[in-house]
Amino acid sequence: MSDPLPSDDTRLLLRDATLADERRVDVAVADGRIAAIADVGALTPADGASLNCLGGLLSPSFVEGHIHLDKTLLGLPLIPHRPGATVAARIQAEKDLLRTLPLSIEERGGRLIEQIVAFGTGAVRTHVDIDTEVGLSGLEAILRLKERFRTLIDMQIVAFPQSGILRDPGTADLLDAAVAAGANLVGGLDPAGIDGDVGGHLDAIFAIAERRSAGIDIHLHDPGALGAFTLRDIAARTQAAGLGGRVAVSHAYALGALDDATFDSTAAALARAGVAIMTNAPGTGPMPPVLRLRDAGVTVFAGSDNIRDAWWPYGDGDMLDRAAVIGYRQGFFSNDDLAHAFAMATALPAAVLGLPGYGLAVGAAADLVLLPCAGIAEAVLERPRARTVLKRGRVVAADGVLSGASAFGNSL
Amino acid sequence: MSDPLPSDDTRLLLRDATLADERRVDVAVADGRIAAIADVGALTPADGASLNCLGGLLSPSFVEGHIHLDKTLLGLPLIPHRPGATVAARIQAEKDLLRTLPLSIEERGGRLIEQIVAFGTGAVRTHVDIDTEVGLSGLEAILRLKERFRTLIDMQIVAFPQSGILRDPGTADLLDAAVAAGANLVGGLDPAGIDGDVGGHLDAIFAIAERRSAGIDIHLHDPGALGAFTLRDIAARTQAAGLGGRVAVSHAYALGALDDATFDSTAAALARAGVAIMTNAPGTGPMPPVLRLRDAGVTVFAGSDNIRDAWWPYGDGDMLDRAAVIGYRQGFFSNDDLAHAFAMATALPAAVLGLPGYGLAVGAAADLVLLPCAGIAEAVLERPRARTVLKRGRVVAADGVLSGASAFGNSL
Repeated sequence: MSDPLPSDDTRLLLRDATLADERRVDVAVADGRIAAIADVGALTPADGASLNCLGGLLSPSFVEGHIHLDKTLLGLPLIPHRPGATVAARIQAEKDLLRTLPLSIEERGGRLIEQIVAFGTGAVRTHVDIDTEVGLSGLEAILRLKERFRTLIDMQIVAFPQSGILRDPGTADLLDAAVAAGANLVGGLDPAGIDGDVGGHLDAIFAIAERRSAGIDIHLHDPGALGAFTLRDIAARTQAAGLGGRVAVSHAYALGALDDATFDSTAAALARAGVAIMTNAPGTGPMPPVLRLRDAGVTVFAGSDNIRDAWWPYGDGDMLDRAAVIGYRQGFFSNDDLAHAFAMATALPAAVLGLPGYGLAVGAAADLVLLPCAGIAEAVLERPRARTVLKRGRVVAADGVLSGASAFGNSL
Repeated sequence: MSDPLPSDDTRLLLRDATLADERRVDVAVADGRIAAIADVGALTPADGASLNCLGGLLSPSFVEGHIHLDKTLLGLPLIPHRPGATVAARIQAEKDLLRTLPLSIEERGGRLIEQIVAFGTGAVRTHVDIDTEVGLSGLEAILRLKERFRTLIDMQIVAFPQSGILRDPGTADLLDAAVAAGANLVGGLDPAGIDGDVGGHLDAIFAIAERRSAGIDIHLHDPGALGAFTLRDIAARTQAAGLGGRVAVSHAYALGALDDATFDSTAAALARAGVAIMTNAPGTGPMPPVLRLRDAGVTVFAGSDNIRDAWWPYGDGDMLDRAAVIGYRQGFFSNDDLAHAFAMATALPAAVLGLPGYGLAVGAAADLVLLPCAGIAEAVLERPRARTVLKRGRVVAADGVLSGASAFGNSL
């Protein structure tokens, strides 16, 4: 993310687009950035192309807050889901399955990247498994994908200890090596539930983050009071390390099932420390209460999490659909609440990921998605598939099809 | 439903389709019915048309188990949702809104019918508001829609007392008149929560059903033990009246939040009486546990409920999406469970509605939907929008577009 693309000389005039505030405007794009925003008809077309937006909604690109590019089974015939009795059994079952696949991470993950780019996602935070069996091989594949698709999508990588840290000795060193090799953040997984040692698990993560100046993004499924205890420990460590704004906790189901006093103290600790929460709006069980957390000062952003993989057969990576699912699960009915769901798939993850130049303003990166809707509420409710996607001012996808890209390539 | 369409002489050979059991077959259609099913290549094309299914999944049409055609705001620009403090306030707010709309029930409901036909729905149960203010006017509009769209969709109508029965004196007589005028079932609404009199409310409904030989479909949002009490009362009355198989309860959220003993006795009573449960898989709060009810012998079927109306801004009426939402909310991961979600949008509501000749078998009505999927699990997970829809053997929609239909017409 710290390495923006070199500008190119593409010029494009987007005519008659509707902005989030319902203003109808023309937007001029030059050198990969938004050069001007003006009333419809006020801009003189340059020598570049022009696109009639027909009053459609123009938004900054979707931002995928949590995905596992290395796990997806996309590109393969459906592999029926096999339930596992315990989390440990499911971790092992996934390892066994991934070892046997006829398609590589680059093939499967590349397919998923192409799919999410076509949906309008311009930046993604992906977690990649790091353990003593696969070592850094998954990270290396993801780094190759990041390079291969750099003209289509910005990528942030979390080194994710799917098999635990203390439970799988040697993993802490691998996480450290992963960050040295190009991962942007250190991940974690259920300090109590997986490693049985909240302090030990967090010690390892925060030590690497501080040593390498990396961010942190921890998977936390541990429920109730135990999850809340862990959240407060993460908040305290974040504050002590001065890492506010660079730490996220993914899932944090616990926040959806706390008594009021515990919720309030936990939310206050997260807000004070600058720890953000990622949710994919799970269908069963509790989830973080989005507006209550927002009102307490905690940023909650959206991610797809698993997509057609050994953990979860659902999903396609459409962040507009994710916004709608969040709204449906949280009872968002008003236009304001629907707009908040949209922000959870756009501006809020952009802020958490620290994307430079994100937004719809002069000077911002021209990473845009055009939707055939009259406004943001309609977009969330209708989730239209007909979209035009721009990256750095170039049209890279329209109506679900990448412009000039081969099935697994980046021939743009 | 008791009035099947006259046959026509359309002949069509559907080549190379995949059935639910994964068999690849050719399907011959004649006179609106399935005339033959055979191995690919085994049937000699008649003088009719032929359609290459390219191995896609061929299923009986979707069946919409619960919709409100008279309430939808489709066709209008988005009207922002206005929350109401109480159910009574929301009932009044809806009445006030519907009175002012520039589009009639026929225009709005007709638009929704066209939309769901294009999604592959071949039969629908719609609830229509009956109260002392609108009288039977809504029913009359719905009866006109039923006639206008009879070549595209079969329709079953529930006379629905949205404003209560006892609470709105005169409504019982109107419900009776509605059934005499063409409604197929008597509806109800929260006997305790709305009318404050479980026995009185159910007395009125069952009296009409017995007098008119009509079915029953009751909205029940009353929670917990109160909802369970009402369900057992409905079951007892159904059994006493010999109405088993003709009574449904819609929503029945209570079933999702009962202690085991109460759940078991309530489910057993419903199973014994032949009372089915409709769910739209609400996003917040409890919902009926689908597999637990199935295992207790209770049919749970799917419906969309509100679609872009004063109650609920979400929804588009796609029953395949509904199946996926049910699976997501119920934790359906295995292919068997995903197939059950699909059945909740096809065979199970067809049985509850008592559709004659439903299914994929020789002699059945050729009401079909073709999906570009290798199987049922894929269909639920991928929810493709590219579909070919047949009604009585004729292609009536493809890829979301009705064949030859005008925006609000039935010019097929």
